[in-house]
Amino acid sequence: MVQSCPEASPAKWHLAHTTWFFESFVLREFLGGYQLFHTDFPWLFNSYYESFSPFPDKRLRASFARPALAEVLAYREHVDVEMERLLEREPEPEALRRIELGANHEEQHQELLLTDILNAFFTNPLRPEYREQGSGISNLKEREQGNEGARERGNAEHFRRFEGGLSEAGHSGDSFCFDNEMPRHRVWLEPFALADRLVTCGEFAEFIADGGYRKPELWLSAGWATVKAEGWRAPLYWTEKDGAWNVFTLRGEQPLDRVRSVPVSHVSYYEADAYARWAGHRLPTEFEWEAVAEGQPVEGNLLDSGHLMPAPAPELVQTQNGTKCYGDCWVWTSSAYLGYPGFRPLDGTLGEYNGKFMSGQMVLRGGSCVTPAAHIRATYRNFFSPETRWQFSGIRLAS
Amino acid sequence: MVQSCPEASPAKWHLAHTTWFFESFVLREFLGGYQLFHTDFPWLFNSYYESFSPFPDKRLRASFARPALAEVLAYREHVDVEMERLLEREPEPEALRRIELGANHEEQHQELLLTDILNAFFTNPLRPEYREQGSGISNLKEREQGNEGARERGNAEHFRRFEGGLSEAGHSGDSFCFDNEMPRHRVWLEPFALADRLVTCGEFAEFIADGGYRKPELWLSAGWATVKAEGWRAPLYWTEKDGAWNVFTLRGEQPLDRVRSVPVSHVSYYEADAYARWAGHRLPTEFEWEAVAEGQPVEGNLLDSGHLMPAPAPELVQTQNGTKCYGDCWVWTSSAYLGYPGFRPLDGTLGEYNGKFMSGQMVLRGGSCVTPAAHIRATYRNFFSPETRWQFSGIRLAS
Amino acid sequence: MVQSCPEASPAKWHLAHTTWFFESFVLREFLGGYQLFHTDFPWLFNSYYESFSPFPDKRLRASFARPALAEVLAYREHVDVEMERLLEREPEPEALRRIELGANHEEQHQELLLTDILNAFFTNPLRPEYREQGSGISNLKEREQGNEGARERGNAEHFRRFEGGLSEAGHSGDSFCFDNEMPRHRVWLEPFALADRLVTCGEFAEFIADGGYRKPELWLSAGWATVKAEGWRAPLYWTEKDGAWNVFTLRGEQPLDRVRSVPVSHVSYYEADAYARWAGHRLPTEFEWEAVAEGQPVEGNLLDSGHLMPAPAPELVQTQNGTKCYGDCWVWTSSAYLGYPGFRPLDGTLGEYNGKFMSGQMVLRGGSCVTPAAHIRATYRNFFSPETRWQFSGIRLAS
Amino acid sequence: MVQSCPEASPAKWHLAHTTWFFESFVLREFLGGYQLFHTDFPWLFNSYYESFSPFPDKRLRASFARPALAEVLAYREHVDVEMERLLEREPEPEALRRIELGANHEEQHQELLLTDILNAFFTNPLRPEYREQGSGISNLKEREQGNEGARERGNAEHFRRFEGGLSEAGHSGDSFCFDNEMPRHRVWLEPFALADRLVTCGEFAEFIADGGYRKPELWLSAGWATVKAEGWRAPLYWTEKDGAWNVFTLRGEQPLDRVRSVPVSHVSYYEADAYARWAGHRLPTEFEWEAVAEGQPVEGNLLDSGHLMPAPAPELVQTQNGTKCYGDCWVWTSSAYLGYPGFRPLDGTLGEYNGKFMSGQMVLRGGSCVTPAAHIRATYRNFFSPETRWQFSGIRLAS
Repeated sequence: MVQSCPEASPAKWHLAHTTWFFESFVLREFLGGYQLFHTDFPWLFNSYYESFSPFPDKRLRASFARPALAEVLAYREHVDVEMERLLEREPEPEALRRIELGANHEEQHQELLLTDILNAFFTNPLRPEYREQGSGISNLKEREQGNEGARERGNAEHFRRFEGGLSEAGHSGDSFCFDNEMPRHRVWLEPFALADRLVTCGEFAEFIADGGYRKPELWLSAGWATVKAEGWRAPLYWTEKDGAWNVFTLRGEQPLDRVRSVPVSHVSYYEADAYARWAGHRLPTEFEWEAVAEGQPVEGNLLDSGHLMPAPAPELVQTQNGTKCYGDCWVWTSSAYLGYPGFRPLDGTLGEYNGKFMSGQMVLRGGSCVTPAAHIRATYRNFFSPETRWQFSGIRLAS
Repeated sequence: MVQSCPEASPAKWHLAHTTWFFESFVLREFLGGYQLFHTDFPWLFNSYYESFSPFPDKRLRASFARPALAEVLAYREHVDVEMERLLEREPEPEALRRIELGANHEEQHQELLLTDILNAFFTNPLRPEYREQGSGISNLKEREQGNEGARERGNAEHFRRFEGGLSEAGHSGDSFCFDNEMPRHRVWLEPFALADRLVTCGEFAEFIADGGYRKPELWLSAGWATVKAEGWRAPLYWTEKDGAWNVFTLRGEQPLDRVRSVPVSHVSYYEADAYARWAGHRLPTEFEWEAVAEGQPVEGNLLDSGHLMPAPAPELVQTQNGTKCYGDCWVWTSSAYLGYPGFRPLDGTLGEYNGKFMSGQMVLRGGSCVTPAAHIRATYRNFFSPETRWQFSGIRLAS
Repeated sequence: MVQSCPEASPAKWHLAHTTWFFESFVLREFLGGYQLFHTDFPWLFNSYYESFSPFPDKRLRASFARPALAEVLAYREHVDVEMERLLEREPEPEALRRIELGANHEEQHQELLLTDILNAFFTNPLRPEYREQGSGISNLKEREQGNEGARERGNAEHFRRFEGGLSEAGHSGDSFCFDNEMPRHRVWLEPFALADRLVTCGEFAEFIADGGYRKPELWLSAGWATVKAEGWRAPLYWTEKDGAWNVFTLRGEQPLDRVRSVPVSHVSYYEADAYARWAGHRLPTEFEWEAVAEGQPVEGNLLDSGHLMPAPAPELVQTQNGTKCYGDCWVWTSSAYLGYPGFRPLDGTLGEYNGKFMSGQMVLRGGSCVTPAAHIRATYRNFFSPETRWQFSGIRLAS
Repeated sequence: MVQSCPEASPAKWHLAHTTWFFESFVLREFLGGYQLFHTDFPWLFNSYYESFSPFPDKRLRASFARPALAEVLAYREHVDVEMERLLEREPEPEALRRIELGANHEEQHQELLLTDILNAFFTNPLRPEYREQGSGISNLKEREQGNEGARERGNAEHFRRFEGGLSEAGHSGDSFCFDNEMPRHRVWLEPFALADRLVTCGEFAEFIADGGYRKPELWLSAGWATVKAEGWRAPLYWTEKDGAWNVFTLRGEQPLDRVRSVPVSHVSYYEADAYARWAGHRLPTEFEWEAVAEGQPVEGNLLDSGHLMPAPAPELVQTQNGTKCYGDCWVWTSSAYLGYPGFRPLDGTLGEYNGKFMSGQMVLRGGSCVTPAAHIRATYRNFFSPETRWQFSGIRLAS
């Protein structure tokens, strides 16, 4: 039931809303004779689709003591049964497309669930631990092992150079993607270099120790205003006690020393940008990132290590494209979230899924340790406001 | 878990906090060797006692997913068992005073629980009904029957006149009271008259129909600013649909016609004051109200009906004093909540119970249909900010 | 043109508004054939009279670049000439009453002008000095000389005891008063004592040095919330530099040492109340203050010094009543600003002058060094919100 | 002295700040022995350069009653004299670059002065007219004449098609530009079309009449939230009276009918974007706009009319480059304001001029009727937050 920050939703709501998505965009349109589970749920669990129905203010989601959890679970059961029934009938292509969209939508909420639980547990004065179970964050353990490896290998960061030129960006082919990844189009890239790993907690601690949060010259003007207004002194889940930093994670509070080589996470765009300036570098554009992630021979100089971004994370995610991507933290890019040339939202209500958020947000690329592996791909565009910190968002430097 | 307005707390919190009160002010001080149930609960469930410990921001109470309900119930069980143990040992007088205070404290939260549930259910877009159970609101049914009676008797409001003079106010004798009801002291009352019943929903609807919410001349300046800022057009739980008013109650949505003779409730001081001005009257002072409620022969003209305020509510509450009081709605008085001459808060931490709130609030007197009957007495001083509407607060006219 | 805090208005506006008062309530009603100076000024310079006309948002007053000062002066000249014309015609009694009201209204704005200039100059990063000229603050010099005297006499504060009993409060007789000072009525006073002078800057500095602003137990709950939200560490115009306090006055910045025996000013009700609690005393009620100020023989123990409150200010103000009052700072009382029993606002629009502000404010009594001397009287009720600090408001202890 | 919205500054401040710019960045660094006019002015009139000195909160600028206007004029005179002295001494190249920057800075403030005056006069309840004088807005008259022409020619809007391809953007050559216009770099443009004139007030009125401000499907999500929060129903200076629209201009209130063919101005990015969606088009990117404005043969299809954007404005501005641009309203582009590839801010404090604002803002191109003609060029990048409306900002459609 907890909704501990404006970005978050209660777990019960996530469950109901993902169910609602299948009911609203699949069953009601493609399963003849479908009976609503509850006449109020269509508008109650609508998140933000203006052309579908009115919907409750997002801030009210924690007030939905009714329907109780049992009723939400029954709703899910009802929709699951009906979905099975639809699937048995060889649904038409558009229905299948919607089901795939619904599955991808649910994957997004699987990630959000963990993102929101971390915030809820941090907000709870007792700071409880989330106990590992299921596959959702199964890579947390390996991630730390990987970091052990990183520590052994030493912490040095390497930049790989790319010659740029006329490149392409955006999704192609028949596999699933969101509308905002299309159309594939040409972009011109100047020569650039990209770090071979994410910035670590230890490196970010040096930025803090060097007065990073007290030097306006390192910050964008809006970022500096936020630092002052919010009293930021460190990333979101860092707390100081007796002069030492602790980092709150899904496994509870961790002393900084234990996570020193783990990628720093839960930083805003402003912090990522300020860190990059302090380090004498910059953030990559989304097109630079994508060109590298796609492994396109933009410069005839493919990474020789056999995979794209080796350290400090041990894990490579095999995406639908066969592309290998990295998934510790979403990476803030220096690209504003805007439509590609020729962008066309989906028809109808589903056109509100992505397109209407194309202002005031920055693109993040990659994926995080709580993103379902199959959900990650090189063309994927995540997006948040530059002051957002509740996401698993980190920093990869470019120059 | 719901906390639907800044004044409200989640039900689970009420349960934990009332338990905390006995643990903190009784067991820890008077039961030798008492073992805390949980080392964090002393500060976690502290509401606002600055001299006791730090405490969480009130707005965070809905984020306490942990401790779970089962653990809070176990906490209660633990404290109940220890309280039994203490009681068996013939506790010293101060311990007994604290226990009585704790019981009265818990009665306040029993009332708040229902007050908060009504708000939570109104805030829930589904507007669920609270199902009657237990004794807490058992008088809701009779209240409506009583209102039937009121309709039969006709709606006319009568003012009873009192001659005033040198009167007394405040608690005396050995029975329990809060520190803010003392010391009993003399007050001079000019002659006054008091209505024999509360203003009804039907009467308040006339105020609305006459443009009451659109005429600045009826309002205090701060009240008018609130009307404009909040867009008030009716009492808190009134909604308009197709030109007709509905009133949301613990029994769900009611058409105005059904509750026309029921006392209007959930109005702010500003609305009570504006209504009184519109009606050509005023609100009573707390001392006028108390003098009448005490049945003191201030004018040799005791109410002849055998009880103080007969209509429209059927129910008379037998208080500890043998005084009969009325309990449909708390009555806004025109008295600011201030200390009586010679007021002395309780010693130590418990001195924060009442005294530190003595600014910016108005006194309400009486009690409401969700106040435990034994909790009502003529000297009782409730208090809220003048814009507060979530309470069962109504209007009795004076002149 | 400066309006440096929500309470303040630009000097040009004060000039126009006091002119408007005579035009609106005297000339237009009592001078046959009166021609408006400008058809827009009636609503433009209306401050808050809802029943007179719409009026601009108070926050806009600094945007009135037009009319320019020259036009406002011409407006004044026009109204002055017409007022002369009216006065030559032996106006009817109600007109004379309005003129007296208008003169008292203008005296209030003469005081506000200086109050607002002090705030404007403090807000100006250059902190300019107000150069003494005219009679408005002629007593500033003597005040400091008087303080020299106070320093010589020693700083000890004495409490005079009064026996209380049935007293009277409110204005009587034919001389001018505002509607909120009436009717004169009986009040019962318990025995009390009142300090013979105001709390000084030096004494308040001890409160600060003792951690007064860091101890929640000294504060009302709303006061403590304000201390934290606003970051209060001292009275409004105090600033700290290298560990030493400076006090900004109409004569510019003064080191604390120079004003140590001057009454502390520009404190809120919350600070006055917290100081009193720290000092082991309390604030007087408005009726205690008035009883003493009127010199009524409430206890047969009149102040023997020949004037009411001798130190540290040298100046006694001879009011209309022949009563002597003290005028260094307005004194916060512990009384909420409410109507007296039987209070009746003036008829018509002028009824909005005082009555509609009777909620959320505390009464201040006396007058200050920038109050015109003839404006001070024992029954005068000033009123501000408890967090207000821009006034010349100070502290007199009671017990 | 008026500062009527957060974006605006008082005229006196503009005068002082532009003077300060020459003193701070030219005289103090390049004129040996330069004596400050006033030791406080360096920080007092610093606008936002964190690395130069502390500076007053922008909201305080209207509180600078001191220094008085005469002192600011004397400051200007002092700096002018010293600038003459420097210029006589054949200053070094960096000094000359700074002087050119200072002149361009002052041109920006010349425009802001008029922008701010329009807002101040609109905020003033009297809505005074700005009387035309000097050259600053001399084109207002011709603009209306031009609109007469536009009305005669009919209102039809034409789109010119461009083939796109590999283009260049950014400033080149030796003439002056700001750092954010560099480096010139390659961009890939897909084929596009651009309207040959701006959207007119008459056209925008059709959007309003069609419910444009009430249809969420036309708006970006953040835009729709702003429409609801601010109650927008029309562009900033439009007011409705008896069902007819008036548009407030520097020449005072104009009935919509009189300005029907004038470009709509003072719309936010959100409104521009929503209008474009309603019209079935989109906004141009800054690179599309620049390619056309530069008259580069991007498609071998130069505008045949002999000048770039003929209607409805009659005026072509001859820029430094010999390029012809259009100057009725700044044009909102769909490009976020970000650094070009390889962007390098100026060294030192002046690096804060443009670079630190590169987040949360959209690029506007062109210039407006209050922009000094010599200040307009094809590579110029203006930028504001998407909700900003106080600028002379309008709409040119693309597709």
